[in-house]
Amino acid sequence: MELSERQVKIVQIVKEKGPITGEQIADLLELTRATLRPDLAILTMSGILEARPRVGYYYNGRSGNTLVARAISKLRVKDIKSLPVVARETASVYDAVVTMFTEDVGTLSVVDGDGYLSGVVSRKDLLKIAISGGDVHKMPVGMVMTRMPNIITVTPDDTVYLAAKRLITHQIDALPVVRTFVQPNGQERLEVVGRLTKTNITRFFVELGNDEL
Amino acid sequence: MELSERQVKIVQIVKEKGPITGEQIADLLELTRATLRPDLAILTMSGILEARPRVGYYYNGRSGNTLVARAISKLRVKDIKSLPVVARETASVYDAVVTMFTEDVGTLSVVDGDGYLSGVVSRKDLLKIAISGGDVHKMPVGMVMTRMPNIITVTPDDTVYLAAKRLITHQIDALPVVRTFVQPNGQERLEVVGRLTKTNITRFFVELGNDEL
Repeated sequence: MELSERQVKIVQIVKEKGPITGEQIADLLELTRATLRPDLAILTMSGILEARPRVGYYYNGRSGNTLVARAISKLRVKDIKSLPVVARETASVYDAVVTMFTEDVGTLSVVDGDGYLSGVVSRKDLLKIAISGGDVHKMPVGMVMTRMPNIITVTPDDTVYLAAKRLITHQIDALPVVRTFVQPNGQERLEVVGRLTKTNITRFFVELGNDEL
Repeated sequence: MELSERQVKIVQIVKEKGPITGEQIADLLELTRATLRPDLAILTMSGILEARPRVGYYYNGRSGNTLVARAISKLRVKDIKSLPVVARETASVYDAVVTMFTEDVGTLSVVDGDGYLSGVVSRKDLLKIAISGGDVHKMPVGMVMTRMPNIITVTPDDTVYLAAKRLITHQIDALPVVRTFVQPNGQERLEVVGRLTKTNITRFFVELGNDEL
């Protein structure tokens, strides 16, 4: 969002002197309150300034990207997640690779005998094993996967922003989307209900951009 | 961007009757032109309506996400691209995998003897070969890569939006960023100057969201 010269001046004044009334800003700029009304409306609507009745305008420290940020922070994992693709811990590395190619995914959630999340295995993990000449038909996925509790996950109600942040911070391509299931004995297990990948984020990015082009 | 009830009414009027002047809109709503000024400013600034001098306001068919879309469409590949990571066509599949792990990337640009782009090879391509039991030490990358001209690329001045769209449309994880180099004989070759991946897009997405949180 490009601010006009006058809008930049207004932000500067509010930064220095806020809270300040519209009248006072108009006086400082030697303009009428009516002239400033559209500028002030834009600045508050975009979240750059805030207005409080009987107090005036104040600067809230946000940049002009706030509208963009707000659109992003509204989106939840459940809105854009993909279906889960899982392998059993006991499946062979070879079978896991086949599942990856059949389903065309880069990461599999690995589940234990009860169907709960026990690990995650990526193309990178499998490539490492395949290239090192181990017997991919005999070696179970459980031996090469990243194991619980060292797994980064998200829930359906987490924001996509949080998911994206985790993907970047932990340098991974995909997150299992999980729900916590408390067993009768009080133990917590994770049920895999989806996956959230860099592809989902890139696709959402394209959708956001669609409006303009 | 949430529109007020009055703003929604204005958009409706302009949709039906546009081009229409501010005075005419004011008359229809039984309000003064001054009262409407902030609303019209917001609606034009956000790109929902457009205003043309001596013609009036008209609806341009865009949604309220236009500000978001505009922020996205401004960004160029050169603003967020990563450094190129390349392998020679003659390198072995094994060496390509090692390069991938050392540089921690998922896709390599492959270059010919003159250093120009001749192909692209992904983790997926290499995993397919490694798992099928071929001799990864003897097989050259040139035999398993996707070869020119079947390669999807972008230039530094393309928008990130275009890059994201290509990643999604062609179901790939990374694009070589290239510059065209015209040889003395008139033949065009591509010089690899970077890579643009889903990771770059996810990272930018996190930066966009940072403002809000």
